[in-house]
Amino acid sequence: MEIKGSVLERLARLYFSLRRGDICEDCEWISSAIIAEHFDMDDTQIRKDLAVIGVKGRPRMGFKRQEVIDEVGGVLGLNKPNKSVVIGAGRLGGAISEYPGFKKYGVTISALFDNDPNKIGSVIGSCAVYSMDMLENEIRSNNIKLAVLTCPSSVAQEATNRLVKVGIKAIWNFSPKKIMVPEDVIVRNEHISVGLAGLTYHLNK
Amino acid sequence: MEIKGSVLERLARLYFSLRRGDICEDCEWISSAIIAEHFDMDDTQIRKDLAVIGVKGRPRMGFKRQEVIDEVGGVLGLNKPNKSVVIGAGRLGGAISEYPGFKKYGVTISALFDNDPNKIGSVIGSCAVYSMDMLENEIRSNNIKLAVLTCPSSVAQEATNRLVKVGIKAIWNFSPKKIMVPEDVIVRNEHISVGLAGLTYHLNK
Repeated sequence: MEIKGSVLERLARLYFSLRRGDICEDCEWISSAIIAEHFDMDDTQIRKDLAVIGVKGRPRMGFKRQEVIDEVGGVLGLNKPNKSVVIGAGRLGGAISEYPGFKKYGVTISALFDNDPNKIGSVIGSCAVYSMDMLENEIRSNNIKLAVLTCPSSVAQEATNRLVKVGIKAIWNFSPKKIMVPEDVIVRNEHISVGLAGLTYHLNK
Repeated sequence: MEIKGSVLERLARLYFSLRRGDICEDCEWISSAIIAEHFDMDDTQIRKDLAVIGVKGRPRMGFKRQEVIDEVGGVLGLNKPNKSVVIGAGRLGGAISEYPGFKKYGVTISALFDNDPNKIGSVIGSCAVYSMDMLENEIRSNNIKLAVLTCPSSVAQEATNRLVKVGIKAIWNFSPKKIMVPEDVIVRNEHISVGLAGLTYHLNK
Protein backbone atom coordinates (compact mmCIF):
# COMPACT_ATOMS: atom_id res chain seq x y z
CA MET A 1 0.00 0.00 0.00
CA GLU A 2 1.25 3.43 -0.97
CA ILE A 3 0.57 6.11 1.63
CA LYS A 4 -0.11 9.55 0.18
CA GLY A 5 2.40 12.32 0.75
CA SER A 6 0.02 14.52 2.72
CA VAL A 7 -0.90 11.65 5.06
CA LEU A 8 2.78 10.75 5.48
CA GLU A 9 3.61 14.31 6.41
CA ARG A 10 0.84 14.50 8.99
CA LEU A 11 1.86 11.13 10.46
CA ALA A 12 5.48 12.30 10.62
CA ARG A 13 4.50 15.49 12.44
CA LEU A 14 2.42 13.47 14.88
CA TYR A 15 5.31 11.04 15.45
CA PHE A 16 7.90 13.73 16.14
CA SER A 17 5.53 15.78 18.30
CA LEU A 18 4.65 12.75 20.42
CA ARG A 19 8.27 11.67 20.77
CA ARG A 20 9.42 15.15 21.59
CA GLY A 21 6.65 15.54 24.16
CA ASP A 22 5.06 18.55 22.45
CA ILE A 23 1.55 17.19 22.85
CA CYS A 24 1.49 15.16 26.05
CA GLU A 25 4.79 14.63 27.74
CA ASP A 26 4.03 11.75 30.07
CA CYS A 27 0.51 10.59 29.24
CA GLU A 28 -0.22 6.96 28.48
CA TRP A 29 -3.36 7.69 26.44
CA ILE A 30 -4.12 10.58 24.15
CA SER A 31 -7.40 11.51 22.46
CA SER A 32 -7.78 12.45 18.81
CA ALA A 33 -9.41 15.68 20.06
CA ILE A 34 -6.24 16.73 21.92
CA ILE A 35 -4.06 15.84 18.93
CA ALA A 36 -6.46 17.73 16.63
CA GLU A 37 -6.31 20.79 18.84
CA HIS A 38 -2.52 20.75 18.84
CA PHE A 39 -2.34 20.64 15.05
CA ASP A 40 -5.36 22.82 14.43
CA MET A 41 -7.05 20.07 12.44
CA ASP A 42 -10.27 18.13 12.47
CA ASP A 43 -10.16 15.10 14.80
CA THR A 44 -11.80 12.97 12.11
CA GLN A 45 -8.70 13.55 9.99
CA ILE A 46 -6.44 12.34 12.81
CA ARG A 47 -8.44 9.13 13.21
CA LYS A 48 -8.51 8.61 9.43
CA ASP A 49 -4.74 9.09 9.09
CA LEU A 50 -4.03 6.61 11.89
CA ALA A 51 -6.56 4.16 10.46
CA VAL A 52 -4.58 4.19 7.20
CA ILE A 53 -1.76 2.41 9.03
CA GLY A 54 -4.11 0.26 11.08
CA VAL A 55 -3.89 2.16 14.38
CA LYS A 56 -7.25 2.39 16.12
CA GLY A 57 -8.23 4.16 19.29
CA ARG A 58 -10.40 2.81 22.08
CA PRO A 59 -13.71 4.43 23.01
CA ARG A 60 -13.34 6.92 25.87
CA MET A 61 -9.60 6.20 26.10
CA GLY A 62 -8.23 7.45 22.80
CA PHE A 63 -4.92 6.20 21.45
CA LYS A 64 -2.12 4.56 23.36
CA ARG A 65 0.73 7.03 22.98
CA GLN A 66 3.54 4.48 22.77
CA GLU A 67 1.58 2.36 20.28
CA VAL A 68 1.12 5.38 18.00
CA ILE A 69 4.85 6.16 18.21
CA ASP A 70 5.86 2.55 17.49
CA GLU A 71 3.43 1.97 14.64
CA VAL A 72 3.96 5.30 12.90
CA GLY A 73 7.72 5.04 13.36
CA GLY A 74 7.65 1.54 11.86
CA VAL A 75 5.64 2.59 8.82
CA LEU A 76 7.83 5.66 8.29
CA GLY A 77 10.95 3.49 8.37
CA LEU A 78 12.35 5.41 11.33
CA ASN A 79 13.02 2.29 13.39
CA LYS A 80 15.48 0.88 10.86
CA PRO A 81 19.03 2.08 10.19
CA ASN A 82 19.49 4.27 7.10
CA LYS A 83 22.91 5.44 6.02
CA SER A 84 23.20 8.72 4.16
CA VAL A 85 25.67 11.13 2.62
CA VAL A 86 25.60 14.93 2.75
CA ILE A 87 26.61 16.90 -0.34
CA GLY A 88 28.06 20.27 0.64
CA ALA A 89 30.12 20.86 3.78
CA GLY A 90 29.05 24.47 4.33
CA ARG A 91 27.27 25.69 7.44
CA LEU A 92 24.01 23.96 6.57
CA GLY A 93 25.69 20.66 5.68
CA GLY A 94 27.66 20.93 8.89
CA ALA A 95 24.57 21.72 10.98
CA ILE A 96 22.80 18.69 9.51
CA SER A 97 25.79 16.44 10.21
CA GLU A 98 25.89 17.54 13.81
CA TYR A 99 22.14 17.37 14.38
CA PRO A 100 21.60 14.70 17.06
CA GLY A 101 17.99 14.11 15.97
CA PHE A 102 18.77 12.04 12.89
CA LYS A 103 20.67 9.34 14.71
CA LYS A 104 17.74 9.02 17.09
CA TYR A 105 15.58 8.23 14.08
CA GLY A 106 17.97 5.65 12.65
CA VAL A 107 19.66 7.90 10.09
CA THR A 108 23.43 8.05 10.24
CA ILE A 109 25.61 10.22 8.05
CA SER A 110 28.39 8.27 6.46
CA ALA A 111 30.34 11.23 5.05
CA LEU A 112 30.18 14.80 3.76
CA PHE A 113 31.37 15.76 0.30
CA ASP A 114 32.68 19.08 -0.93
CA ASN A 115 34.87 20.52 -3.64
CA ASP A 116 36.60 23.05 -1.41
CA PRO A 117 40.21 21.95 -0.71
CA ASN A 118 40.06 23.80 2.62
CA LYS A 119 37.20 21.61 3.77
CA ILE A 120 38.33 18.27 2.37
CA GLY A 121 40.03 16.22 5.08
CA SER A 122 38.38 18.07 7.94
CA VAL A 123 35.92 16.49 10.38
CA ILE A 124 32.52 18.01 11.21
CA GLY A 125 30.79 16.49 14.22
CA SER A 126 31.95 12.93 13.74
CA CYS A 127 31.83 13.02 9.92
CA ALA A 128 34.80 13.29 7.60
CA VAL A 129 34.64 15.66 4.64
CA TYR A 130 35.70 13.95 1.41
CA SER A 131 36.40 15.25 -2.05
CA MET A 132 33.51 14.97 -4.52
CA ASP A 133 35.81 12.62 -6.45
CA MET A 134 35.16 9.99 -3.77
CA LEU A 135 31.37 10.25 -3.99
CA GLU A 136 30.58 7.22 -6.14
CA ASN A 137 33.03 5.00 -4.34
CA GLU A 138 31.69 5.84 -0.88
CA ILE A 139 28.04 5.42 -1.88
CA ARG A 140 28.66 2.14 -3.65
CA SER A 141 30.83 0.55 -1.01
CA ASN A 142 28.39 1.46 1.78
CA ASN A 143 25.25 0.70 -0.25
CA ILE A 144 23.83 4.14 0.58
CA LYS A 145 20.39 5.06 -0.75
CA LEU A 146 19.77 8.44 0.91
CA ALA A 147 21.50 11.75 0.14
CA VAL A 148 21.13 15.23 1.60
CA LEU A 149 21.76 18.07 -0.82
CA THR A 150 23.09 21.30 0.70
CA CYS A 151 25.33 22.41 -2.17
CA PRO A 152 24.90 25.68 -4.11
CA SER A 153 22.09 25.78 -6.72
CA SER A 154 24.60 26.01 -9.54
CA VAL A 155 25.84 22.47 -8.94
CA ALA A 156 22.67 20.88 -7.53
CA GLN A 157 21.53 19.18 -10.75
CA GLU A 158 24.99 17.93 -11.59
CA ALA A 159 25.36 16.44 -8.11
CA THR A 160 21.88 14.93 -8.39
CA ASN A 161 22.75 13.23 -11.68
CA ARG A 162 25.78 11.62 -10.11
CA LEU A 163 23.81 10.52 -7.04
CA VAL A 164 21.06 8.97 -9.14
CA LYS A 165 23.54 7.21 -11.40
CA VAL A 166 25.25 5.54 -8.47
CA GLY A 167 22.01 4.26 -6.94
CA ILE A 168 20.65 6.95 -4.58
CA LYS A 169 16.87 6.52 -4.26
CA ALA A 170 15.92 9.37 -1.93
CA ILE A 171 17.19 12.97 -1.97
CA TRP A 172 16.54 15.54 0.71
CA ASN A 173 17.01 18.80 -1.17
CA PHE A 174 17.93 21.85 0.90
CA SER A 175 19.27 23.73 -2.10
CA PRO A 176 16.85 26.33 -3.46
CA LYS A 177 17.03 24.67 -6.87
CA LYS A 178 14.37 22.36 -8.25
CA ILE A 179 16.10 19.13 -9.26
CA MET A 180 15.07 16.59 -11.88
CA VAL A 181 15.17 12.89 -11.07
CA PRO A 182 13.90 9.64 -12.61
CA GLU A 183 10.53 8.33 -11.43
CA ASP A 184 11.93 5.78 -9.01
CA VAL A 185 13.82 8.42 -7.02
CA ILE A 186 11.98 10.47 -4.41
CA VAL A 187 12.88 14.08 -3.67
CA ARG A 188 11.86 16.10 -0.66
CA ASN A 189 12.34 19.82 -1.21
CA GLU A 190 12.90 21.49 2.13
CA HIS A 191 11.40 24.97 2.11
CA ILE A 192 12.76 26.16 5.39
CA SER A 193 11.06 29.53 4.87
CA VAL A 194 7.59 28.02 5.30
CA GLY A 195 8.08 28.22 9.05
CA LEU A 196 8.89 31.89 8.72
CA ALA A 197 5.58 32.69 7.05
CA GLY A 198 3.45 31.66 10.02
CA LEU A 199 5.47 33.98 12.23
CA THR A 200 5.51 37.01 9.92
CA TYR A 201 1.74 36.60 9.52
CA HIS A 202 1.23 36.92 13.25
CA LEU A 203 3.61 39.85 13.52
CA ASN A 204 1.93 41.81 10.74
CA LYS A 205 -1.77 41.06 11.07
CA MET B 1 -9.78 37.69 10.68
CA GLU B 2 -7.57 35.01 12.17
CA ILE B 3 -6.36 32.45 9.64
CA LYS B 4 -5.98 28.96 11.05
CA GLY B 5 -2.50 27.50 11.38
CA SER B 6 -3.10 24.65 8.96
CA VAL B 7 -4.44 27.03 6.28
CA LEU B 8 -1.48 29.37 6.86
CA GLU B 9 0.96 26.53 6.41
CA ARG B 10 -0.66 25.39 3.16
CA LEU B 11 -0.74 28.95 1.84
CA ALA B 12 2.91 29.39 2.77
CA ARG B 13 3.88 26.21 0.93
CA LEU B 14 1.92 27.34 -2.10
CA TYR B 15 3.59 30.75 -1.98
CA PHE B 16 7.13 29.41 -1.77
CA SER B 17 6.51 26.72 -4.38
CA LEU B 18 5.10 29.25 -6.83
CA ARG B 19 7.90 31.75 -6.21
CA ARG B 20 10.55 29.09 -6.48
CA GLY B 21 9.01 27.76 -9.70
CA ASP B 22 8.39 24.27 -8.32
CA ILE B 23 4.89 24.10 -9.76
CA CYS B 24 4.90 26.13 -12.97
CA GLU B 25 8.02 28.04 -13.71
CA ASP B 26 6.82 30.50 -16.32
CA CYS B 27 3.06 30.08 -16.59
CA GLU B 28 0.72 33.03 -16.25
CA TRP B 29 -2.26 30.96 -15.15
CA ILE B 30 -2.37 27.89 -12.98
CA SER B 31 -5.30 25.58 -12.23
CA SER B 32 -6.25 24.32 -8.78
CA ALA B 33 -5.99 20.81 -10.24
CA ILE B 34 -2.30 21.27 -11.07
CA ILE B 35 -1.61 22.79 -7.65
CA ALA B 36 -3.55 19.95 -6.01
CA GLU B 37 -1.55 17.34 -7.90
CA HIS B 38 1.73 18.95 -6.84
CA PHE B 39 0.78 18.88 -3.16
CA ASP B 40 -1.12 15.61 -3.30
CA MET B 41 -4.26 17.31 -2.02
CA ASP B 42 -7.85 17.74 -3.06
CA ASP B 43 -8.35 20.66 -5.44
CA THR B 44 -11.41 21.78 -3.45
CA GLN B 45 -9.06 22.38 -0.52
CA ILE B 46 -6.81 24.59 -2.66
CA ARG B 47 -9.75 26.72 -3.79
CA LYS B 48 -11.08 26.93 -0.22
CA ASP B 49 -7.70 28.02 1.18
CA LEU B 50 -7.32 30.74 -1.44
CA ALA B 51 -10.92 31.86 -0.93
CA VAL B 52 -10.09 32.42 2.76
CA ILE B 53 -7.86 35.32 1.69
CA GLY B 54 -10.21 36.44 -1.08
CA VAL B 55 -8.33 35.01 -4.06
CA LYS B 56 -10.67 33.52 -6.63
CA GLY B 57 -9.93 31.71 -9.85
CA ARG B 58 -11.60 32.21 -13.20
CA PRO B 59 -13.54 29.42 -14.93
CA ARG B 60 -11.42 27.50 -17.41
CA MET B 61 -8.39 29.71 -16.64
CA GLY B 62 -7.61 28.94 -13.04
CA PHE B 63 -5.61 31.35 -10.89
CA LYS B 64 -3.33 34.12 -12.04
CA ARG B 65 0.06 33.01 -10.73
CA GLN B 66 1.39 36.46 -9.88
CA GLU B 67 -1.86 37.45 -8.17
CA VAL B 68 -1.65 34.37 -5.94
CA ILE B 69 1.96 35.20 -5.06
CA ASP B 70 1.17 38.85 -4.30
CA GLU B 71 -1.96 38.19 -2.29
CA VAL B 72 -0.63 35.27 -0.27
CA GLY B 73 2.67 37.09 0.30
CA GLY B 74 0.75 40.14 1.52
CA VAL B 75 -1.41 38.17 3.95
CA LEU B 76 1.58 36.25 5.26
CA GLY B 77 3.43 39.49 5.90
CA LEU B 78 6.26 38.51 3.58
CA ASN B 79 6.14 41.74 1.59
CA LYS B 80 7.01 43.86 4.62
CA PRO B 81 10.39 44.18 6.31
CA ASN B 82 10.84 42.21 9.53
CA LYS B 83 14.00 42.47 11.59
CA SER B 84 15.07 39.49 13.66
CA VAL B 85 17.78 38.22 15.97
CA VAL B 86 19.30 34.74 16.06
CA ILE B 87 20.14 33.17 19.43
CA GLY B 88 23.06 30.76 19.08
CA ALA B 89 25.94 31.26 16.68
CA GLY B 90 26.64 27.56 16.07
CA ARG B 91 26.46 25.91 12.67
CA LEU B 92 22.68 26.10 12.48
CA GLY B 93 22.53 29.74 13.60
CA GLY B 94 25.24 30.49 11.08
CA ALA B 95 23.46 28.64 8.27
CA ILE B 96 20.28 30.59 9.02
CA SER B 97 22.15 33.90 9.03
CA GLU B 98 23.69 33.16 5.68
CA TYR B 99 20.51 31.82 4.08
CA PRO B 100 19.68 34.18 1.21
CA GLY B 101 16.00 33.18 1.23
CA PHE B 102 14.99 35.19 4.26
CA LYS B 103 16.04 38.54 2.89
CA LYS B 104 14.04 37.78 -0.23
CA TYR B 105 10.99 37.44 2.01
CA GLY B 106 11.63 40.66 3.89
CA VAL B 107 13.30 39.16 6.94
CA THR B 108 16.68 40.56 7.86
CA ILE B 109 18.85 39.34 10.70
CA SER B 110 20.03 42.16 12.88
CA ALA B 111 22.54 40.19 14.94
CA LEU B 112 23.51 36.80 16.34
CA PHE B 113 23.99 36.18 20.05
CA ASP B 114 26.15 33.64 21.79
CA ASN B 115 27.90 33.07 25.10
CA ASP B 116 31.05 31.59 23.59
CA PRO B 117 33.93 34.11 23.84
CA ASN B 118 35.47 32.56 20.70
CA LYS B 119 32.40 33.48 18.68
CA ILE B 120 31.63 36.89 20.14
CA GLY B 121 33.02 39.61 17.89
CA SER B 122 33.13 37.42 14.78
CA VAL B 123 31.01 38.00 11.69
CA ILE B 124 28.90 35.27 10.04
CA GLY B 125 27.61 36.12 6.60
CA SER B 126 27.03 39.82 7.16
CA CYS B 127 25.93 39.47 10.78
CA ALA B 128 27.96 40.29 13.85
CA VAL B 129 27.98 37.89 16.79
CA TYR B 130 27.31 39.68 20.08
CA SER B 131 27.52 38.57 23.67
CA MET B 132 24.22 37.51 25.22
CA ASP B 133 24.70 40.45 27.58
CA MET B 134 23.82 42.75 24.68
CA LEU B 135 20.56 40.95 23.85
CA GLU B 136 18.03 43.24 25.52
CA ASN B 137 19.74 46.39 24.33
CA GLU B 138 19.88 45.28 20.69
CA ILE B 139 16.26 44.11 20.60
CA ARG B 140 14.95 47.24 22.29
CA SER B 141 16.91 49.75 20.25
CA ASN B 142 15.93 48.09 16.95
CA ASN B 143 12.35 47.36 17.99
CA ILE B 144 12.75 43.71 17.00
CA LYS B 145 9.77 41.37 17.38
CA LEU B 146 11.08 38.14 15.81
CA ALA B 147 13.71 35.80 17.22
CA VAL B 148 15.22 32.56 15.93
CA LEU B 149 16.27 30.09 18.60
CA THR B 150 19.17 27.80 17.70
CA CYS B 151 20.77 27.52 21.13
CA PRO B 152 21.21 24.25 23.07
CA SER B 153 18.09 22.85 24.78
CA SER B 154 19.58 23.48 28.21
CA VAL B 155 19.38 27.25 27.80
CA ALA B 156 16.36 27.50 25.46
CA GLN B 157 13.78 28.37 28.12
CA GLU B 158 16.06 30.88 29.83
CA ALA B 159 16.72 32.60 26.50
CA THR B 160 13.00 32.53 25.71
CA ASN B 161 12.15 34.21 29.00
CA ARG B 162 14.58 37.03 28.24
CA LEU B 163 13.25 37.42 24.68
CA VAL B 164 9.64 37.58 25.84
CA LYS B 165 10.45 40.05 28.60
CA VAL B 166 12.06 42.46 26.17
CA GLY B 167 9.14 42.37 23.72
CA ILE B 168 9.72 39.53 21.24
CA LYS B 169 6.34 38.38 19.85
CA ALA B 170 7.32 35.55 17.52
CA ILE B 171 9.89 32.79 18.13
CA TRP B 172 11.12 30.34 15.53
CA ASN B 173 12.34 27.46 17.67
CA PHE B 174 14.97 25.19 16.10
CA SER B 175 16.08 23.86 19.48
CA PRO B 176 14.67 20.40 20.25
CA LYS B 177 13.21 21.78 23.47
CA LYS B 178 9.56 22.70 23.93
CA ILE B 179 9.46 26.28 25.19
CA MET B 180 6.79 28.00 27.28
CA VAL B 181 5.59 31.48 26.29
CA PRO B 182 2.73 33.81 27.22
CA GLU B 183 -0.41 33.69 25.08
CA ASP B 184 0.44 36.75 23.00
CA VAL B 185 3.71 35.24 21.77
CA ILE B 186 3.66 32.78 18.89
CA VAL B 187 6.13 29.91 18.65
CA ARG B 188 6.88 27.86 15.58
CA ASN B 189 8.68 24.62 16.47
CA GLU B 190 10.77 23.53 13.52
CA HIS B 191 10.90 19.76 13.34
CA ILE B 192 13.47 19.41 10.64
CA SER B 193 13.22 15.63 10.89
CA VAL B 194 9.70 15.60 9.42
CA GLY B 195 11.24 15.83 5.95
CA LEU B 196 13.36 12.81 6.72
CA ALA B 197 10.35 10.63 7.47
CA GLY B 198 8.89 10.88 3.97
CA LEU B 199 12.20 9.72 2.54
CA THR B 200 12.84 6.86 4.93
CA TYR B 201 9.28 5.64 4.27
CA HIS B 202 9.99 5.37 0.56
CA LEU B 203 13.34 3.70 1.15
CA ASN B 204 11.90 1.06 3.46
CA LYS B 205 8.48 0.25 2.05
